[in-house]
Amino acid sequence: MRDFLPQEKSRRESVLAKIRSLYISLGFQEIETPALEELQRLTSGQGGDNEKLVFKVQKRGQDLESALAQNQELADLGLRFDLTVPLTRFYASNQSKLPKVFKAIQIGPVWRAERPQKGRYRQFMQCDIDIIGDSSELAELELLSAALSALAELGLKDATIRVNHRELLTNNILGLGILAKDTLSAMISIDKLDKIGVEGVAKELGNKFGPEVSEKATRWLLGIDQTAVPELLLPLFEGLADSERLRFDPSLVRGMGYYTGSIFEIEHPESGSSIGGGGRYDSMVGKHLGADVPAVGISLGIERIMEIIAPLDSKTNSVVLLISGPQLARTAIKLQAQGVAAGYQVRIELKQKNLKAQLDDMQNQGFELFAELSLEVSFSELNLKALS
Amino acid sequence: MRDFLPQEKSRRESVLAKIRSLYISLGFQEIETPALEELQRLTSGQGGDNEKLVFKVQKRGQDLESALAQNQELADLGLRFDLTVPLTRFYASNQSKLPKVFKAIQIGPVWRAERPQKGRYRQFMQCDIDIIGDSSELAELELLSAALSALAELGLKDATIRVNHRELLTNNILGLGILAKDTLSAMISIDKLDKIGVEGVAKELGNKFGPEVSEKATRWLLGIDQTAVPELLLPLFEGLADSERLRFDPSLVRGMGYYTGSIFEIEHPESGSSIGGGGRYDSMVGKHLGADVPAVGISLGIERIMEIIAPLDSKTNSVVLLISGPQLARTAIKLQAQGVAAGYQVRIELKQKNLKAQLDDMQNQGFELFAELSLEVSFSELNLKALS
Repeated sequence: MRDFLPQEKSRRESVLAKIRSLYISLGFQEIETPALEELQRLTSGQGGDNEKLVFKVQKRGQDLESALAQNQELADLGLRFDLTVPLTRFYASNQSKLPKVFKAIQIGPVWRAERPQKGRYRQFMQCDIDIIGDSSELAELELLSAALSALAELGLKDATIRVNHRELLTNNILGLGILAKDTLSAMISIDKLDKIGVEGVAKELGNKFGPEVSEKATRWLLGIDQTAVPELLLPLFEGLADSERLRFDPSLVRGMGYYTGSIFEIEHPESGSSIGGGGRYDSMVGKHLGADVPAVGISLGIERIMEIIAPLDSKTNSVVLLISGPQLARTAIKLQAQGVAAGYQVRIELKQKNLKAQLDDMQNQGFELFAELSLEVSFSELNLKALS
Repeated sequence: MRDFLPQEKSRRESVLAKIRSLYISLGFQEIETPALEELQRLTSGQGGDNEKLVFKVQKRGQDLESALAQNQELADLGLRFDLTVPLTRFYASNQSKLPKVFKAIQIGPVWRAERPQKGRYRQFMQCDIDIIGDSSELAELELLSAALSALAELGLKDATIRVNHRELLTNNILGLGILAKDTLSAMISIDKLDKIGVEGVAKELGNKFGPEVSEKATRWLLGIDQTAVPELLLPLFEGLADSERLRFDPSLVRGMGYYTGSIFEIEHPESGSSIGGGGRYDSMVGKHLGADVPAVGISLGIERIMEIIAPLDSKTNSVVLLISGPQLARTAIKLQAQGVAAGYQVRIELKQKNLKAQLDDMQNQGFELFAELSLEVSFSELNLKALS
């Protein structure tokens, strides 16, 4: 878990504000759910391996004592590990107040009790859009197009999206001679392709399912033709204006167990790992409602994106207003208001003994101009000087 | 804990964005700390009664097992109950990278395991500004002025601030014949003045400290003259341009135990309870550093503020673009981009069988205009009609 210092926080807020504003302009609607959910819901099997990483919150007072005495579960709440499980709960609770096709924006922190390692955080931001209630490819097209536009807004115009479909993947796995009951296990191996290569995956499948499967897998993975887009995915390639940004990848798995249709993974040449992803999960929302509800979502990996976008431009029109003592506070605050009204950012500082150190300090914090206040003047009469 | 539906979420984000933007224009710098802190830090006595309300996060894996076996504390982390305790930890960890006088903005959720009741939430937003490293009244003046400006920005121009000073309060308590060691206990009783009135407070003090104290307290509380601003607080009344917004209140306590100097509580005629508050806490930051560091902060009560501000204006220039089928997605998305570039918010909808219900639905969600797309046109050629 991390502290964010002012400059990094400012970059993050600027990135999130740009994404939020773009998604809203496309008619998506932002919602918020609480950080804590019932532990039972978080560990009901929807979240795959992430369920093992839930931070569990202890029962309180009498409840904890009786749980201890009776050897029962000591926790009743948990910190959410993603925004999708809460979204399905939200939709089931609030369906009557939502439009028939619900296009949701969720931007918020999630928590996973992972072992600390480079690039992995125990608290991190997720930034999701989901469309619930539309089973047509319009939903996928809107999400892919929105995500690409958001990335372009952040200067990441070279993003590409790998696309696959869970049905195609399953058929390919069955075609290797793997039994239907072992599909998930095979997916777990194939998902490692980026890390361990064709040889590694084939070896792992061989260990699990025998040498014949291993041989077939090698031939399949080496012979993959990304230009032969299958009919099931043609509507996406034909419908997206930026279709050169899409790439068919029959070996794409996406970890989460709940996907039922199309799956996506977003890449950018500057990032070693994916910067987002998503897919269709038509049978998950229905669990709370007793009827299947079509749903599809895409998530931007904010932490990865922060690593590859250009730094913020330094603030323009930022002024440090130096005063000799607190008795000038009233004048300074009046001038500050004038400066803010004129579009400046104005910070008041008591002049320190070591003025040079103070000005350097302010420049390091991103301020550009300064002025000294010694008598009753208006903001426009100030003699603004560059800090550098 | 609450879900926020789109319209409420949009209001909240708009309020927070206005406050953030105003504070930044005044040279404050936003930071972020994690939601989880070491449990030990959260229960070290800085947080008063709030420490009892910490949601405790269980140790994981082996650590939990050995804690259970050895009858030790089962939790090692906790959800923060305010933003001040994390700020002092942040400042101690990052001091070398911060300006000498650090003016911090913190906007984020906090958690308290309170029994659910009207107007109290187990997760709620706090919105704080703090100045660390300035012992002069300039710090108080900046905070009071900034908070009043933020409230004015939200349309709450009638906010007033009650002010007191912990030293004055302590002297008044000693003057009632209460011993120094009982000051805190007396403050707890006086803090109830709003709820139980002069008679109630006098009775409680009588029960604790005898009839003579009770009698003196009655005389003191009934004789309070809010116009007789003491010398210790004069710099605030003289330094604030909006000084008619300040009111001296010698009976103001503010719950938190850590205040050492001036204390504030913000009120508004439309709200039955305070909409913010704060004060000086000069000995708290130093605990982590081994030397006293002056600090003062003010917090806006976002949940209370949301209850009294005017509803959001409905979105102008919001268009629902109806299409007959997903095969028109590509054209619709192209038009959408044109509309967004022209300053519209554009939502694509597959035309439903019951068009009237669909349009009503969209109007309820805050959209204003709609148009049907049937052939290749540009956004400016669309025939936009009002939804109402």
